[in-house]
Amino acid sequence: MQAEIITIGDEILIGQVVDTNSAFISKALNKIGVSVYQITSVQDDKAHILKSLKEAEENADIIIVTGGLGPTKDDITKTTIAEYFDDTLVQDDAVLKYIESLWKKYIKQPLSQVNIDQALVPSKATVLMNLFGSAPGMWLEKEDKVFISLPGVPYEMKALINDEVLPRLQEQFELPFILHKTLLVYGIGESKLAERIEDWENNLPHFIKLAYLPNLGMVRLRLSAKGTNEELVINEMNKQVALLLPQIEKEFVGFEEDGALEVLIGKRLTSLGKTLATAESCTGGKIAERVTANSGASVYFNGSVVSYATQAKIDVLHIDEGIIKKHSVVSTQVAEAMAKSVQKIFKTDYAIATTGNAGPTKGDADAEVGTVCIAIATPNGVFSEIFSLGNHRTKVINKAVNKAFEMLQKEIFKN
Amino acid sequence: MQAEIITIGDEILIGQVVDTNSAFISKALNKIGVSVYQITSVQDDKAHILKSLKEAEENADIIIVTGGLGPTKDDITKTTIAEYFDDTLVQDDAVLKYIESLWKKYIKQPLSQVNIDQALVPSKATVLMNLFGSAPGMWLEKEDKVFISLPGVPYEMKALINDEVLPRLQEQFELPFILHKTLLVYGIGESKLAERIEDWENNLPHFIKLAYLPNLGMVRLRLSAKGTNEELVINEMNKQVALLLPQIEKEFVGFEEDGALEVLIGKRLTSLGKTLATAESCTGGKIAERVTANSGASVYFNGSVVSYATQAKIDVLHIDEGIIKKHSVVSTQVAEAMAKSVQKIFKTDYAIATTGNAGPTKGDADAEVGTVCIAIATPNGVFSEIFSLGNHRTKVINKAVNKAFEMLQKEIFKN
Repeated sequence: MQAEIITIGDEILIGQVVDTNSAFISKALNKIGVSVYQITSVQDDKAHILKSLKEAEENADIIIVTGGLGPTKDDITKTTIAEYFDDTLVQDDAVLKYIESLWKKYIKQPLSQVNIDQALVPSKATVLMNLFGSAPGMWLEKEDKVFISLPGVPYEMKALINDEVLPRLQEQFELPFILHKTLLVYGIGESKLAERIEDWENNLPHFIKLAYLPNLGMVRLRLSAKGTNEELVINEMNKQVALLLPQIEKEFVGFEEDGALEVLIGKRLTSLGKTLATAESCTGGKIAERVTANSGASVYFNGSVVSYATQAKIDVLHIDEGIIKKHSVVSTQVAEAMAKSVQKIFKTDYAIATTGNAGPTKGDADAEVGTVCIAIATPNGVFSEIFSLGNHRTKVINKAVNKAFEMLQKEIFKN
Repeated sequence: MQAEIITIGDEILIGQVVDTNSAFISKALNKIGVSVYQITSVQDDKAHILKSLKEAEENADIIIVTGGLGPTKDDITKTTIAEYFDDTLVQDDAVLKYIESLWKKYIKQPLSQVNIDQALVPSKATVLMNLFGSAPGMWLEKEDKVFISLPGVPYEMKALINDEVLPRLQEQFELPFILHKTLLVYGIGESKLAERIEDWENNLPHFIKLAYLPNLGMVRLRLSAKGTNEELVINEMNKQVALLLPQIEKEFVGFEEDGALEVLIGKRLTSLGKTLATAESCTGGKIAERVTANSGASVYFNGSVVSYATQAKIDVLHIDEGIIKKHSVVSTQVAEAMAKSVQKIFKTDYAIATTGNAGPTKGDADAEVGTVCIAIATPNGVFSEIFSLGNHRTKVINKAVNKAFEMLQKEIFKN
């Protein structure tokens, strides 16, 4: 069973918006055994949308279209889909009623004509109720193909995928079993890793594919298995993972399916009953932000001091000015002092501290652009490392965040 | 002049990686007057890549392919492009020499055969030197069409686009002039806005297109103009913007082309010689992270306290426990106390504070999920607002960050 995703909107093709919807939809479809053959982003242009629908119909069984359902003149998806199905738009009373209730509750203004028109749908469509907005989802069928149109607003689209689209697809089609396992591997390069596990890779069964996904100081090693016999797929996957793990024992930190590194850390800290704080300079709060993006973080995360200016390190973290003068603000000594200080301030078991120069200019620091010192305070002491993370600001910040999580992870999982 | 972007990689089609490369390339091409007709993401599969190259050749003048150039077995773009051009791979000595120098400097290990093979390129290709990695870019021509293959690693791709691809395209083609102006509009819904500016919109000249891009409490209003006469395009754009601005005077906060809201705030604070700190609870450091993602932030941003746990508000921000008990931790009173405290701690002119409940569970707070209080401390006092930002964690956090920037922006631009 193959799907194609079509995302509609000029904003994608001029690069103003990154299309994150496709990744979400692809992941969701994969989980129920639907492979995505292609993702196509097209303009808000009738001829182009019609062409892409036709091509998708040739390639795929399930066509999911997002975007272009808003109330303004540039939104033409609905009328174009009606044309593709040789259909007309009719008012859906349930949708209109729901829009009226939303307006009454949140907008507190009378409906305008463009709002009322949001309740128009092709007469052949089954409506998928959008509980978070005024543009309904639509489900249409043509011979044995399914066409699904969803709003482009991510949280509206996500709710429709989870609550309406996936259950309906599972009911309508006999789907194969797809299983992904992604090993998070730190501290070894892609080609070195490929060399080390070459024999194992060459002996993988044909229904398991391997991919290397290198990214800022780590490699994600993804195994994808597909088959009709769920038990066989799971057993073979487990067997292959068991064969691989001893070869990357030192570098393996966890499975991505169990969550990103900060999620694994959060679960571990929760089960240990331990707490965490961070003192961030060059990472500017990004470590705290990644931690707190996950619900449940309040159980183990007490807080952070973002001591961006050097003076803030002295005033707020009470770092001895002598240490800064002697070793410079970007030094393992200052990182360690920051970690110990923030551990004490927030009364936590563990603390992460970063100080570095993300560039492009030198800022307060003497250090070369890309130099980052990271310290981890534990209940038993403090340790630190110094890194050279390149010359690209975003890259330096994100690499430093990953390195910090990696150091903490190794520490809390070793016991 | 039309381009098509093809991104190659199973990781995109299973939703493991969000394709951010396409947005970057689209934006870059638009700036030099090349429109992107379509973005197509395809699997690491020879037949599929060949099919997409053929289709792109029919639609577009310039075909840019990213991904699939790594050293491992799943990377097949290079051999597939060679096949498409009926060509063979030959060793490029300059590339091999550069790879050797990279390995000597950073990897400090001998080159393996897969590393050496990175220097193989189709004999018909012009090499685009990749200074940040081992996979070279490639430029091929077929009749009047240009095919460009780039590595998928974002910072390697970006450098090649800026340093090699754009200058070569500008030299080879006569390109039209494209101008985008995007107005950031806060505090009015999409359909309401459309109604208000309908007359103006209906009278836009045919070469200026308008799009509404609503997103978490703001609408971006994008005007796109295209023509061969640069002066005419600029003049008409300025004229239309001048006609529009009085109609959205209260809601307009700036042009996106001048930077995101935090960039506009940073520029303003820098020019005023004023400083900023943040005290973040439910936003978890995201305000600080968005501020410090921009180089030059150290001029005006002193730091932040992420007081995630209630106890941290008492211990670190010295918030009076009585206020918390009386008004609850999610209250405008606590937000104002946090803002004043962090302003004092970091000795800044302005401070932002957030306290709220991002959900999905209630955490430390009694407040309903989605309730967020935001306070701004200024040199003259403090003010605050309470918001109800929905029931989706990521949405609540991001809306709160946007609201905080909006409140600060209105404050510092009103003088």
